[in-house]
Amino acid sequence: MRIIGIDPGLASTGFGIIETVGNKIKYVAHGVIKTSPEKPLGERLFHIYQDLNQVIDMYKPDEGGVEALFFAKNITSALPVAHAKGVVHLVFAQHGIPLGEYTPIVIKRAVVGEGRAEKNQVQEMVKVILNLDKVPRPDHAADALSAAICHVNNRSFANV
Amino acid sequence: MRIIGIDPGLASTGFGIIETVGNKIKYVAHGVIKTSPEKPLGERLFHIYQDLNQVIDMYKPDEGGVEALFFAKNITSALPVAHAKGVVHLVFAQHGIPLGEYTPIVIKRAVVGEGRAEKNQVQEMVKVILNLDKVPRPDHAADALSAAICHVNNRSFANV
Repeated sequence: MRIIGIDPGLASTGFGIIETVGNKIKYVAHGVIKTSPEKPLGERLFHIYQDLNQVIDMYKPDEGGVEALFFAKNITSALPVAHAKGVVHLVFAQHGIPLGEYTPIVIKRAVVGEGRAEKNQVQEMVKVILNLDKVPRPDHAADALSAAICHVNNRSFANV
Repeated sequence: MRIIGIDPGLASTGFGIIETVGNKIKYVAHGVIKTSPEKPLGERLFHIYQDLNQVIDMYKPDEGGVEALFFAKNITSALPVAHAKGVVHLVFAQHGIPLGEYTPIVIKRAVVGEGRAEKNQVQEMVKVILNLDKVPRPDHAADALSAAICHVNNRSFANV
């Protein structure tokens, strides 16, 4: 099964694709969709829409995982992220791809085994789990890969 | 020129269409796109996406106006509205239709002449300006018509 993780953002939306082979997780790809702050909101969202459609057409994921939004974090930056996340949910629904949503605590617990882990611990574990030479960059892509890993783990827990 | 106003919401997105004939404003249509709270977020946003595309294909507006979001109002309800608003901006960009964004104060000032007007005053003025028999219903559609009226006024101010 092929899983895509998404870390939504208006300026930069990360994506990370992994594959489950038996009970192993294999790395496939990662990257970011960047939009220009000089463009109007609608054009930036349309850019995310088009590029995310391309990523899905190219990698044909079966399911996806995305980080849930929290207002408590940063109210000022929550609005553009929510706009981008709306587009992400739309694209997945349009393709009929189920999209799981996970809180940062659930993602950290799935990747590191500890809900209060630091960002760099999570990224190191992503590297180890996916058998990569180095921590994936940029942060948005690494976060997207952790959302994908979390989705795999939570799916398999659900099957126990 | 044909103008569409939008009042975005996840459960109910209002739209109102007007036309400028010389320096008069003529009513064309209004309505709401409703989605079921029992459906997943992605499906609801896809529903808004599809229906809004249909409304635009049917009425072929030249430009649009939408109310700006404020967190101060109600933080809990801001997130789903922001998701829906992201989809609205996307659809307009996809059709190449310019979409103006106006704060509630600017909209009230444009419709009633007073930024602190009450909701029912705004709705009464929408009825008067558009020469309707009664206040348009539901509220989301009336609010969408005020956003459209505001866009017309602010465009003409910009041309002075």
